[in-house]
Amino acid sequence: MQKKENISMSVIRRLPRYHRFLSELEKNGVTRISSKELSEKMRLTASQIRQDFNCFGGFGQQGYGYNVPQLRVEIGKILGLQNNFKCVLIGAGNLGRAIMGHMPFEQLGFQLIGAFDNSPKVIGTVISGCKISDYQDIRKFYAENSPIMAILCVPREVVEKISDELYEIGIRSFWNFSHYDISLKHPDATVENVHMNDSMMTLCYRLCTLE
Amino acid sequence: MQKKENISMSVIRRLPRYHRFLSELEKNGVTRISSKELSEKMRLTASQIRQDFNCFGGFGQQGYGYNVPQLRVEIGKILGLQNNFKCVLIGAGNLGRAIMGHMPFEQLGFQLIGAFDNSPKVIGTVISGCKISDYQDIRKFYAENSPIMAILCVPREVVEKISDELYEIGIRSFWNFSHYDISLKHPDATVENVHMNDSMMTLCYRLCTLE
Repeated sequence: MQKKENISMSVIRRLPRYHRFLSELEKNGVTRISSKELSEKMRLTASQIRQDFNCFGGFGQQGYGYNVPQLRVEIGKILGLQNNFKCVLIGAGNLGRAIMGHMPFEQLGFQLIGAFDNSPKVIGTVISGCKISDYQDIRKFYAENSPIMAILCVPREVVEKISDELYEIGIRSFWNFSHYDISLKHPDATVENVHMNDSMMTLCYRLCTLE
Repeated sequence: MQKKENISMSVIRRLPRYHRFLSELEKNGVTRISSKELSEKMRLTASQIRQDFNCFGGFGQQGYGYNVPQLRVEIGKILGLQNNFKCVLIGAGNLGRAIMGHMPFEQLGFQLIGAFDNSPKVIGTVISGCKISDYQDIRKFYAENSPIMAILCVPREVVEKISDELYEIGIRSFWNFSHYDISLKHPDATVENVHMNDSMMTLCYRLCTLE
């Protein structure tokens, strides 16, 4: 299995979905699946799936189907899920605490090594084994632990200030839940945004077209 | 402005992004923008933007640029953001409470009219003016208030049972935060999923390719 260079982001963005479907199949005891069956489950065309997989040298046993656990492992390797990239979470409000409590970090390529907030109400509390520390200590923590990614769950008003500070101390990757566009100011940062508002607006559009 | 039929979901999914960028521009006092400037800001090609807008009859004043507030309003109308669709939230844990507290529902086409949980710890509490009620009362609430959409913030183990129950009482639209695929069992439901895991895996891939 070899990565081709310049694989488009739309192919990349389908990989987690393949991984998710394959994990689900594996959980249900399915060990082999044809590209036709997989395509029906995923609502893609079989040719689209073959084309996607060919970007990585292909995994297929044509006519015989894919080995589900093996394909899941291969896609996991391409995604780099074995990496355990060190990350910190900034902003332990409801959303931050939900993420700390429910995201299966280690299955997703990360390891949550710290969480930070400025509220005395949450500083010192522990969620899923991770202690929430005073945001004032972030610089010291970075120097000692070198996290490479920060999850930003802070209010919109402070996200610019906080992302600037984190960038300045050395963090270059962000998982961002606010609508502030970090890459405009820091074009070399790797930013993945979760735009919950966009998703809700899309649902609104779809409800309108039903009527 | 007229909607063409059969507009592809990839165009639709860009509309909230246009809306978001235009809102931001408007907030910063920008009243007019050329498709070239807009395309640079949004990292799309100018021709892509014109093509997208042409799906709705076009908004352009070629050469002169777009009127920002007007374009935002027009796109808002296409998205149906004036609808105030009634919705309920199921599962008022950290994620559910974050959504209740931080989503600007009325700007996104919805109105949160109720929230439900089964934990005595949260039943009776109020977040952003919305009281959390006992999930046992959902049927009665539906009969009296007819919400058309449910936001599902429940644990993975119960999402099948709960979505079945909600479907059975009459709810056909879901904003779903779990990885359970509601549409497989209920193909006529309108489901918008927020796959936070996929987003985190994509970030992992991008970090790998940096190294």
